[in-house]
Amino acid sequence: MLQKAAPAKPKMANHTTPLIMNCWYVAARAGEVTRTLLERTLLGKTVVLYRKLDGTPVIMQNRCAHRSFPLSKGRLEGDQVVCGYHGMAYNPEGQCVAMPSLANAPTHARIASYPTVERGPLIWVWMGEADKADPALIPDTAWLESADWTTVTGYFHMKSNYVAMHENLLDQTHFAILHADTVGTPEYARSSLEIFNEGDVVRIQRALHDSPPPPIYGIPMKLTGRQVDRFSDSRFASPAGHIAFAKIVDLAAPDPAQAEYRVNITHLFTPEFQGTIHYWWFNSRDFGLDDAAASAYLTETSLKAYQEDVDALTWIQEEVEKGDGAPDELSFGPDRPGLAMRKIMLRLAMAEQPEQPQAAAAGPAAVAIKMY
Amino acid sequence: MLQKAAPAKPKMANHTTPLIMNCWYVAARAGEVTRTLLERTLLGKTVVLYRKLDGTPVIMQNRCAHRSFPLSKGRLEGDQVVCGYHGMAYNPEGQCVAMPSLANAPTHARIASYPTVERGPLIWVWMGEADKADPALIPDTAWLESADWTTVTGYFHMKSNYVAMHENLLDQTHFAILHADTVGTPEYARSSLEIFNEGDVVRIQRALHDSPPPPIYGIPMKLTGRQVDRFSDSRFASPAGHIAFAKIVDLAAPDPAQAEYRVNITHLFTPEFQGTIHYWWFNSRDFGLDDAAASAYLTETSLKAYQEDVDALTWIQEEVEKGDGAPDELSFGPDRPGLAMRKIMLRLAMAEQPEQPQAAAAGPAAVAIKMY
Amino acid sequence: MLQKAAPAKPKMANHTTPLIMNCWYVAARAGEVTRTLLERTLLGKTVVLYRKLDGTPVIMQNRCAHRSFPLSKGRLEGDQVVCGYHGMAYNPEGQCVAMPSLANAPTHARIASYPTVERGPLIWVWMGEADKADPALIPDTAWLESADWTTVTGYFHMKSNYVAMHENLLDQTHFAILHADTVGTPEYARSSLEIFNEGDVVRIQRALHDSPPPPIYGIPMKLTGRQVDRFSDSRFASPAGHIAFAKIVDLAAPDPAQAEYRVNITHLFTPEFQGTIHYWWFNSRDFGLDDAAASAYLTETSLKAYQEDVDALTWIQEEVEKGDGAPDELSFGPDRPGLAMRKIMLRLAMAEQPEQPQAAAAGPAAVAIKMY
Repeated sequence: MLQKAAPAKPKMANHTTPLIMNCWYVAARAGEVTRTLLERTLLGKTVVLYRKLDGTPVIMQNRCAHRSFPLSKGRLEGDQVVCGYHGMAYNPEGQCVAMPSLANAPTHARIASYPTVERGPLIWVWMGEADKADPALIPDTAWLESADWTTVTGYFHMKSNYVAMHENLLDQTHFAILHADTVGTPEYARSSLEIFNEGDVVRIQRALHDSPPPPIYGIPMKLTGRQVDRFSDSRFASPAGHIAFAKIVDLAAPDPAQAEYRVNITHLFTPEFQGTIHYWWFNSRDFGLDDAAASAYLTETSLKAYQEDVDALTWIQEEVEKGDGAPDELSFGPDRPGLAMRKIMLRLAMAEQPEQPQAAAAGPAAVAIKMY
Repeated sequence: MLQKAAPAKPKMANHTTPLIMNCWYVAARAGEVTRTLLERTLLGKTVVLYRKLDGTPVIMQNRCAHRSFPLSKGRLEGDQVVCGYHGMAYNPEGQCVAMPSLANAPTHARIASYPTVERGPLIWVWMGEADKADPALIPDTAWLESADWTTVTGYFHMKSNYVAMHENLLDQTHFAILHADTVGTPEYARSSLEIFNEGDVVRIQRALHDSPPPPIYGIPMKLTGRQVDRFSDSRFASPAGHIAFAKIVDLAAPDPAQAEYRVNITHLFTPEFQGTIHYWWFNSRDFGLDDAAASAYLTETSLKAYQEDVDALTWIQEEVEKGDGAPDELSFGPDRPGLAMRKIMLRLAMAEQPEQPQAAAAGPAAVAIKMY
Repeated sequence: MLQKAAPAKPKMANHTTPLIMNCWYVAARAGEVTRTLLERTLLGKTVVLYRKLDGTPVIMQNRCAHRSFPLSKGRLEGDQVVCGYHGMAYNPEGQCVAMPSLANAPTHARIASYPTVERGPLIWVWMGEADKADPALIPDTAWLESADWTTVTGYFHMKSNYVAMHENLLDQTHFAILHADTVGTPEYARSSLEIFNEGDVVRIQRALHDSPPPPIYGIPMKLTGRQVDRFSDSRFASPAGHIAFAKIVDLAAPDPAQAEYRVNITHLFTPEFQGTIHYWWFNSRDFGLDDAAASAYLTETSLKAYQEDVDALTWIQEEVEKGDGAPDELSFGPDRPGLAMRKIMLRLAMAEQPEQPQAAAAGPAAVAIKMY
């Protein structure tokens, strides 16, 4: 049997690592945030979401500063949220602007109002230190709002930690097993792989030349039976998500200018609590923009494959929660992209923690990792 | 943003303060306690309730001293409770009087039997130090059993801490907001307020002269459209409840001796666990004693208004339980009656705790309160 | 009132004592373990159960060494379990024999594979230190697979700690109370009792001469109305179970060689978690082997009586879990067999715990026991 490693300083984030706050996360789809107050839990905190009269989205702490009444159970009055208990009103910045029982509003009273940015179909939120909330840090998802692309999309509420979800998305070796009946193909497993670790981004590239396209590409592109070159660039963009860029080149295309087909797959997810996530996925293509059959096919195929991931990660989370202590784990060569990501996430998470004596600091992510 | 106050010695009870044991609480309605064993959890302890052959109510520890079998699953034999597992029998004082497998009953064996007092429709229990159980400490609710009064009543099992419930009842400024559609009236918010802190009782008085009565008084009193004087005396009577005395004077009454109408509202509640309470309410009037329509109207109106309180307090409890740590809170002038009550409750609760080093003692109610 | 005993070093196992690992426990019925992977939790650990191609049962840790995917959600390939996530394959010894994404299998990778023994209708597992797993330690249950015996059997998933279950089975004084309507008889309570403490086995013997048989024996043996001698030998065989041997002698049998009737009752149970158990019971007889009516009667009667035990132990467990701290308990003379068993179980459990300072060691079973 393997000897249990001495409880060493952990080097990887795992399902117990404190959630990273200094990051833009998706809070909601744009259409979910309206003039009706919406309650949601993000990063372990309940928030209330709404739009100002001018349409700007607002995301605030849901707990009234007075007696913790959830503001989402109150009402919207113009741009202000009015608590349903004593009528304490907050402006979109979280500042108290009225308290009916007082002659003068206690304007020094404030609750957290989080920086938000609306980008196409998404509303992003920054729940960490406000002065670090630079919109330039939001991952680029321009294709989601471009007329040159058509997108199908879906949502899962998942019982999983977000680190495990990121590792799943950076991991190419589970395709042939977990997704054997959906998107896994033996050719893909044979393709070459390059890993790039650029700052806090981890990127993997694959190329597969002169092979038949898998159904998930062949069918919507109408390339079944043809030979194609296939390129994939898949990246841990931030703790908030993973984006995969695929390019298929039809080797027999009569017009080389029309030989390329692109699919961008955008996986965005936000921890609800430590062991659950909100997961929004988007499958975008730059071809057959009005092809309803292609949209239906891609929706159905995506749902089937992602359900397999959701099931696997749920089972793992349940196994881990049932377990006695943090599980040891073994890692192998193909896990390198995931381990690179987990090192980044541990570093980001720990940088946000109050300083602790070294021994105690090892606590939250005390997992023994063996690498082979 | 507000700076978080340094973790100071807390001055107010909150939802984490240990439950006060040395107090008479309502255990049950008189009619609930019969010759059939009844199990209930009060102050975090499961008890069994029944009546002796002479009708006297008995409330005992539910756990058999032998192997923790719940006595409520056993049976009543005369005045004794017989355990359903090995037949260990207890008299109403909790003393073992028989054990079938032994030649001599182990009469030194005892379980807790709690002092009880039956008063009209209620059975009160004292689960603290028995030698302090003075029946004179039971709040006066004589009107509940007087032929000069008619009472409508109801029960809620609520997800709330009892401190929050007390604060809600001492708080007049939520009427116009939370109860805007039921019992809140703008006139009431304008009325004068006096606060009296007498020993462990907190009392608030309001008077409102020469105004139309709100429907909740006007309709059952048949004074709609008349001008009235309105007086209210509402008090934190003990940790077990709050009583409000209202008097309406019909300014145009032909006979001044018949110008007064009284309504006593009795709110009695007992913690089940730290975050749930049993809540019995009573609306008693000294007019229209046989007026079935008035009874129906008052029942319906009370239920509607109290449901609003139940909802609000439940939402707050859920928000507090979801939250990361005890919430900070802000307090304002109109919160003074509630804060006075919370100081009393903290003092009473802490007096029952084993002595601790000062720092540790601050633990159970470590809430930062800001007052404005 | 009884004074609470000073927190002394505990002398008895109770519902908080760490589970004993070094013991053969029943893992499953033989028929449950097939070529389909089966997941079960035993002693707080999730395991996967299956049969090799040659029929040998295998019980392994359910958590893949790589990323904790539950192997029971994977598939069986020959004698190997293949993880459903990345295809990591394990042989029945728990050694990794294949990892599709690697050129060479990481054969140093191992998960726990637990010693198993199949005996008639049962599969036994040893989840403690493997080098102590001597099959000679499995309690003898030869009658369960003998053609000279007929057995009826059932299963309960129970909310109970296994110590309380053992105590129930060693305890004869609850029959007349808890089982008053099923198997309890007043004669039995009068019978003599001898207790034998042999190593880690506790055995109680009873004899009752020249009395009418209780229905549970009289009816299937067709001895109603006759006088019989009745002998019982009931034993705490190991932490995994309790076996009762009953012998009835028909005093008026024409042929003395055919006067004896035997019933062996085998109670086998395995902790799932600390507060739940898997419970398999077997009622075996050496008479009326093909008597379907006797089988039906014994099944129905056993189910009724055991349901009473299941209810009682569930209620106790719920009462204990609701309670504030480990309950004190009182013990009496008839509890001696149970207390002897609880001393053995505490000794066995503590022998498996890492050494601790004396004070801390008292922790897990800190119950104050009074004996009278």
